[in-house]
Amino acid sequence: MSTVITNIGELAGADEERWLVEDAALVIDGDRIAWAGPAADAPAADERYDAGGRAVLPGFVDSHAHLVFAGERAEEFAARMSGRPYAAGGIRTTVERTRSASDDDLRANVGRIVAEMARQGTTTVECKSGYGLTVEQEERAVRIAAEIVDEVTFLGAHVVPAGADPADYVRLVTGPMLAACAPYARWIDVFCERGAFDADQTREILTAGRAAGLVPRLHANQLGPGPGVGIAVEFDAASADHCTFLTEEDVAALADSGTVATLLPGVEFSTRQPYPDARALLDAGANVALATDCNPGSCYSSSMAFCVALAVREMRMTPEEAVRAATEGGAKALRRTDVGHLRPGARADVLLLDAPSHIHLAYRPGVPQVAQVWRSGKAI
Amino acid sequence: MSTVITNIGELAGADEERWLVEDAALVIDGDRIAWAGPAADAPAADERYDAGGRAVLPGFVDSHAHLVFAGERAEEFAARMSGRPYAAGGIRTTVERTRSASDDDLRANVGRIVAEMARQGTTTVECKSGYGLTVEQEERAVRIAAEIVDEVTFLGAHVVPAGADPADYVRLVTGPMLAACAPYARWIDVFCERGAFDADQTREILTAGRAAGLVPRLHANQLGPGPGVGIAVEFDAASADHCTFLTEEDVAALADSGTVATLLPGVEFSTRQPYPDARALLDAGANVALATDCNPGSCYSSSMAFCVALAVREMRMTPEEAVRAATEGGAKALRRTDVGHLRPGARADVLLLDAPSHIHLAYRPGVPQVAQVWRSGKAI
Repeated sequence: MSTVITNIGELAGADEERWLVEDAALVIDGDRIAWAGPAADAPAADERYDAGGRAVLPGFVDSHAHLVFAGERAEEFAARMSGRPYAAGGIRTTVERTRSASDDDLRANVGRIVAEMARQGTTTVECKSGYGLTVEQEERAVRIAAEIVDEVTFLGAHVVPAGADPADYVRLVTGPMLAACAPYARWIDVFCERGAFDADQTREILTAGRAAGLVPRLHANQLGPGPGVGIAVEFDAASADHCTFLTEEDVAALADSGTVATLLPGVEFSTRQPYPDARALLDAGANVALATDCNPGSCYSSSMAFCVALAVREMRMTPEEAVRAATEGGAKALRRTDVGHLRPGARADVLLLDAPSHIHLAYRPGVPQVAQVWRSGKAI
Repeated sequence: MSTVITNIGELAGADEERWLVEDAALVIDGDRIAWAGPAADAPAADERYDAGGRAVLPGFVDSHAHLVFAGERAEEFAARMSGRPYAAGGIRTTVERTRSASDDDLRANVGRIVAEMARQGTTTVECKSGYGLTVEQEERAVRIAAEIVDEVTFLGAHVVPAGADPADYVRLVTGPMLAACAPYARWIDVFCERGAFDADQTREILTAGRAAGLVPRLHANQLGPGPGVGIAVEFDAASADHCTFLTEEDVAALADSGTVATLLPGVEFSTRQPYPDARALLDAGANVALATDCNPGSCYSSSMAFCVALAVREMRMTPEEAVRAATEGGAKALRRTDVGHLRPGARADVLLLDAPSHIHLAYRPGVPQVAQVWRSGKAI
């Protein structure tokens, strides 16, 4: 079954030479993009969908989210907005709730948010464990995540559980917990931060993860300057996430590397932190991605459009830079070549906006502007 | 026809004593609220709607919007985000497009945005003229607005049209333009700002408007400190809107008055201006409203939820203060006692969130969280 989407006012991410083309058409064949080009040259297809002159983009790639959890922390959020700062320890609140939830409750929560994301145009989602912190609970988290999302990350090293000895816990994470989780995950991640895991612990965990066949990515430099970005580059991690507090050396190291700087401005919004210096990263030539970090503590937004609006307003990215970071940037952060763009051969993850241009994602903040989403060629 | 909404986890604005009550029910009878109270005491009704433990609020009251326009200014927005500041003169771009649009095009644009607002929980909308700037065009704007929205404001004094003599234009606004527009409008408004209308012109226009039976409201202190707030209080205006640059005297004057300070943080977001000092206003005892200012230049967001999130993050309002400002605050700014709350007798404008608490409007920024909206008792 093929579908030609005609009368596209602005088509993004479908042409090797120019990211944006006007007056275009796109052909979906099965679950793949079969053709993209000028509307006048569009081939015939089984079905025809008129985009009405509106904008078509690749579906968003949300490369950083924590969705296997139970409970919420709305009261903590409200208190923080009245002055209490965000601390990594808040994670433990969610750990308690998550441990006591049933498999079905956790599955329903992941499914609920992934569906909410899809309605907002997100067609690829990465999901981390990290609210279990025991072998059994972390295994359960990655197993449930793997049932629902494309990309699963083992984040046993999210925080040291209450009452545990840090060295013992690192031995658990790198030993039996890793062994139990590796079959379900592609990625190994560590929250490298004061209050979570230090440089030595981070290296030990990434090394063990790599030996088990997982690929490193890292929570780095969120709450203050630190060794995270340097370690991410040292391990050729796919991504260093947060990058809120960077030195010039960190920026240069990222620009010189294959490691993507994944910025999560919804976190800075929801924790009232300063925003990362996206311009320094972009101007230095680093690869930049945008993601939500959707989680019940530091940012409970699942909206990539909101991240785009923040990136433009708060981080001085152009609308084009922001939307590219939210699509091809996220794909690069997940080392995926089949998503984040709409060139022939791509997975047919297509977002039709109810707007004439990608600029409207930042120009109309907070307004739902998704007209239609296709994932793997299927209308959602 | 009556409907009882049962199993409301959190009900806002329905009790004289406490703004929030838990475990509640609400009865809609025709277009009015007939009863509100504990779920266990709910009377019978023709129909029953299970809120599933979620939060119910009064529909948002958006007391400041400019919806009678044609065209968009996405490119201007993108340029501004790269460093070009917002100037009142940009309004003239929209004036040209609006003048050449047909009545039906303008009607469709107002209807499109009002429907978009309704889907986002906004059930009362104020709409201003101000992109016509001739007698015929301004008359057309207020006439079309009056067909669609509850509250219509004559804003011939939005900006002096290109090439016109300011004194001549003020004579036009206070003479034939006012005469043509007054039958369709309830409110008279002036953009009192450097580059728009000065103190003397503002007083002259408000005085004429009042003589024609209109009630003053004012664009005041948006782009810099100025006489706007003082004049608003002097004229007992229903509202002084923007209040971005206030002196201590301005804050004290507002607190001592019946004039509501209407804050429009979407404008500060979209023009990268500093935010108004909401805390100073609230702490001094001023009445505060939140509104979108939805317009194609300085803020093209129609989302009251986004305003609430910005109010919490950027202006340090508590979630309760922000949601009250977006409901009862807006009603006060429009001198309406029938909307902005859910006490018996109110118009049945009801917003069911897909969330357990009003806090989620700020806690989950950018995420569509409207489960159901009733306007005048009818499900939208």
